[in-house]
Amino acid sequence: MEQDSQNGRPRVVVIGGGFGGLNAALGLANSEVQVTIFDRKNHHTFQPLLYQVALAALSPADIAAPIRTAVHGKKNIDVVIGNVVGFDLERRLVHLEEDLDVPYDYLIVAAGATHSYFGHDDWAELAPGLKTIEDATEIRRRVLLAFELAERESLIEGQHCPLNFVIVGAGPTGVELAGAIAEISKNVLKEDFRAIDPRRARIILLEGGPRVLPSYSADLSASAQRQLEQLGVEVRTNTMVTNIEPGLVDVGEHKIDSAVTIWAAGVKASSLGKALGAKIDRSCRAFVNDRLNIEGHTEVFVIGDLARFEQNGKPVPGVAPVAIQMGQYVAEEIRRRVSNQPSKPFSYWDKGSMATIGRTKGIAQIGKIHLSGFLAWAAWLFIHLIYLIGFRNRFFVLLSWGWQYLSWHSGARLITGSDRLPGWHSHRATDATEERKKAAG
Amino acid sequence: MEQDSQNGRPRVVVIGGGFGGLNAALGLANSEVQVTIFDRKNHHTFQPLLYQVALAALSPADIAAPIRTAVHGKKNIDVVIGNVVGFDLERRLVHLEEDLDVPYDYLIVAAGATHSYFGHDDWAELAPGLKTIEDATEIRRRVLLAFELAERESLIEGQHCPLNFVIVGAGPTGVELAGAIAEISKNVLKEDFRAIDPRRARIILLEGGPRVLPSYSADLSASAQRQLEQLGVEVRTNTMVTNIEPGLVDVGEHKIDSAVTIWAAGVKASSLGKALGAKIDRSCRAFVNDRLNIEGHTEVFVIGDLARFEQNGKPVPGVAPVAIQMGQYVAEEIRRRVSNQPSKPFSYWDKGSMATIGRTKGIAQIGKIHLSGFLAWAAWLFIHLIYLIGFRNRFFVLLSWGWQYLSWHSGARLITGSDRLPGWHSHRATDATEERKKAAG
Repeated sequence: MEQDSQNGRPRVVVIGGGFGGLNAALGLANSEVQVTIFDRKNHHTFQPLLYQVALAALSPADIAAPIRTAVHGKKNIDVVIGNVVGFDLERRLVHLEEDLDVPYDYLIVAAGATHSYFGHDDWAELAPGLKTIEDATEIRRRVLLAFELAERESLIEGQHCPLNFVIVGAGPTGVELAGAIAEISKNVLKEDFRAIDPRRARIILLEGGPRVLPSYSADLSASAQRQLEQLGVEVRTNTMVTNIEPGLVDVGEHKIDSAVTIWAAGVKASSLGKALGAKIDRSCRAFVNDRLNIEGHTEVFVIGDLARFEQNGKPVPGVAPVAIQMGQYVAEEIRRRVSNQPSKPFSYWDKGSMATIGRTKGIAQIGKIHLSGFLAWAAWLFIHLIYLIGFRNRFFVLLSWGWQYLSWHSGARLITGSDRLPGWHSHRATDATEERKKAAG
Repeated sequence: MEQDSQNGRPRVVVIGGGFGGLNAALGLANSEVQVTIFDRKNHHTFQPLLYQVALAALSPADIAAPIRTAVHGKKNIDVVIGNVVGFDLERRLVHLEEDLDVPYDYLIVAAGATHSYFGHDDWAELAPGLKTIEDATEIRRRVLLAFELAERESLIEGQHCPLNFVIVGAGPTGVELAGAIAEISKNVLKEDFRAIDPRRARIILLEGGPRVLPSYSADLSASAQRQLEQLGVEVRTNTMVTNIEPGLVDVGEHKIDSAVTIWAAGVKASSLGKALGAKIDRSCRAFVNDRLNIEGHTEVFVIGDLARFEQNGKPVPGVAPVAIQMGQYVAEEIRRRVSNQPSKPFSYWDKGSMATIGRTKGIAQIGKIHLSGFLAWAAWLFIHLIYLIGFRNRFFVLLSWGWQYLSWHSGARLITGSDRLPGWHSHRATDATEERKKAAG
């Protein structure tokens, strides 16, 4: 770092190699600044496809690429694996673990968001969320193992226990997971087992609010629910989860047997927003102005899921296109500042949003255009392939999908790690009678 | 299982879905017996290519396939994920965890082998071995992380510490790992880092005996050592490891700094050989006769790495072709017995053996034919692709290799899991002076 201050180049520190941070760094490639990206992981993850890894349709390496690979050949960009623990905004220093300080002239904080269990952090082990490659392989492990354990029980013990998958939260992640589990249960796995019929698995999608995909229009929400139900997903809106136990999900009046519980109900921003000393909202997002700066620091930018940016009186959503546009904007703004050009404000251009449901369904909302079913899914596929980072990944994802589509064989059905499921046996001993009868009926 | 005893079909229990067990089960497909494969994992692993996963050239799903997929469509074969803990040979029962008993008429034990640390089990955490997909991703994590941590030290702290990779044991696994680490250091990673030069990494291969690949002829051993040295591997024969500490490997008189230590020095058979009550050798292998039966039990077969079978006065090696042939033989022998045909003895047909060194080198010994260099490597590639289970995998491995070969980009360089390395810092504080001087010189 000393070299850079000696050669007089402004030093830009980017925290986070997700969509926001990576686009900010790439936007500054071959410029007059020296960029260093810090991330705890060595890879950029294409989060919108994580659920495909969780459901064994893709391998981790299909949707993740080393950050180094993404910035390959950009001589003014360094990548450092490290954990940022705090800041000294007065002295313009980033504190890393192990008492290391890194100076900056411009700071871009793009540390993203993680699951929020609304104060019930003990639920994390029982109901993993889906934000990282590790989360995805853990969900894959649990889902596949549930089928294996049910097969074992049937073959060896002659028992047929309910095989329920409960997804908490019907935002895009919950809907995509529910649709994908339904697909593999009904289609992919149906010939793999002898003693159990995977098609008898129940997929239960719980939503606290009145409709699924609440960020979409009412007609698309209704369409999404219909498409989910066609796939066999049981959608329960206005249903609040009051507790999660091993093998059980409590929804107030009764308990639902659950072989695998997945959390898709809430996110909170990284704690680095608070560490900046910035004003934060209830989701820990840092308020930023129309230059994406926190108050009082024109050299500190916050972007992506960590930023609370309001446009037309409401906050922009925590989605990849917002993070990408913010990253691109900050790169341009820093270029303007170092070349003494006039500053310009950020504005988000909403190109529309899409959610996929199962193998060939989905919804899309592009301005006033509302698409449902296959057309929405085709649009989704096209857009996601275009955005995927790295030729190799795009090529392999396409092949993997093509093969899967033609053969109905899912490719990456590996169970790695432990062969235990929390509550696999305990859930039999409970008094979840209402649900038992339902499953038996 | 009761069904099967009711319908009168002989019940064959296979323990282990590796090369031996899987070939035994497949050899009994569509026969008059009912087969159940038990494995702790849901997947068959193509162990000869594990080192390619460990060195990030292939993804786990490229070299592993669910056992269910491998026996897809064979109606008389069940697959059960479960942990076998013991046997009751008198009552012909297999004990599973959780107090479950499974009856059999024929038992095939193919539980394989694991690492042996020769009584130093505390070394396992410091020097992982390479037997499973989890092992491979752990080694991948450590190797890639070592380069990342070295880059961070150089960039932020201005320090240049030695970056040594120490592989203990110069059998096929150790030689393949050493060659592959040398290749990625010298070629694949060389443009990825700015502050460090990955080509300065030292790869040290320690062998207790007088030569590498001791199971090969002396001329091929010598050729292998030359090929390794051409790749930059430091080969040290007659070097016994006396202790392993975080960041250090003790070799008697001095200590070697080691960022990543990998164990390829010894294997021992599964404890299930002992659990059978059979006579076992020092590596815990169960002695079997020329029908691959243990003494006194013509209905109990032991095959693969768990079997101690002697031919021409010496034990056959623990390699995939032996396990495959044993599995095929046992299937045929059981078919003969249930149809009251005369029994035949097993004999191993040695088609030769091969080891690969780096990207385009290797050695091969096929009867009296000894190959070295590119020709050996090409033979190795061809044979391995042919044996890989599953069209999809073969297709993807070929593509992945082709792409890697053309582009020099390694495909699956993901670090998942923890961002710590045992002893990463402590090894600086040691008195490994001899090695320090050597590294500095």
